[in-house]
Amino acid sequence: MIEQTERFSEGQSLPWQDVLNTLKFNEDGLIPAIAQQHDTGEVLMMAWMNRESLNETLETKQVCYWSRSRQKLWRKGESSGQQQKLIELRIDCDGDTLLLLVDQWGAACHTGRRNCFYNVIQGDRVVVNSNPLVDPDILYGKS
Amino acid sequence: MIEQTERFSEGQSLPWQDVLNTLKFNEDGLIPAIAQQHDTGEVLMMAWMNRESLNETLETKQVCYWSRSRQKLWRKGESSGQQQKLIELRIDCDGDTLLLLVDQWGAACHTGRRNCFYNVIQGDRVVVNSNPLVDPDILYGKS
Repeated sequence: MIEQTERFSEGQSLPWQDVLNTLKFNEDGLIPAIAQQHDTGEVLMMAWMNRESLNETLETKQVCYWSRSRQKLWRKGESSGQQQKLIELRIDCDGDTLLLLVDQWGAACHTGRRNCFYNVIQGDRVVVNSNPLVDPDILYGKS
Repeated sequence: MIEQTERFSEGQSLPWQDVLNTLKFNEDGLIPAIAQQHDTGEVLMMAWMNRESLNETLETKQVCYWSRSRQKLWRKGESSGQQQKLIELRIDCDGDTLLLLVDQWGAACHTGRRNCFYNVIQGDRVVVNSNPLVDPDILYGKS
């Protein structure tokens, strides 16, 4: 179904439920989701969604992922308070990747940094390009 | 190794080769790579890299992915001419996702659109939000 949109012009549309049924979840039932701060364009993180977390995100407008390590729904910010409000959800040309435009409260990264992509390759070194906004021990109630 | 950087301050660094050895490629030897236009912040596409394509990208500064459908190196733009020049490569906190800041020539998407995320959920519809910059039949020499 999503392939139909290849030849669509701006403004043409399909019913969401029809598109949902053609999204390409992987063998674990997951699809990658990129979170981007809606107003600054900053790429905050990449995580995974299953169909349930995608539906919940669209219903509540609070971003919910699937945690592969914990094997459960991961309501972003449920333990840290650093929630993501969904502004807009986009699907790519192949129907196998999502782009979430969000409004991120505080730090998106579990290290307490604003975004997860803080390791920058510079020549033969990997350099950390930012400091945490908040100590992760405080974020997760360990101190 | 990448986990060490969690507690690093801005400016601290590790040797690239040590970090490379701890990147988390999946069971197919692949890692997701998000391409973002370096100056505008536009998220262009998401694709996959293996170790060979990552090394080539860093060496040549021309982005090279691994094509899962064709099972071969995919030098972005090799058939369409729509190349991506690598400006900066970043690694996320978990070492399992890459962010490529690139300078995209023309269209990143195989549909001829600037970016792949042109399907926008609006209520119960999925609406196409952009037109191709160039006809894909021209891009791929079919007409």
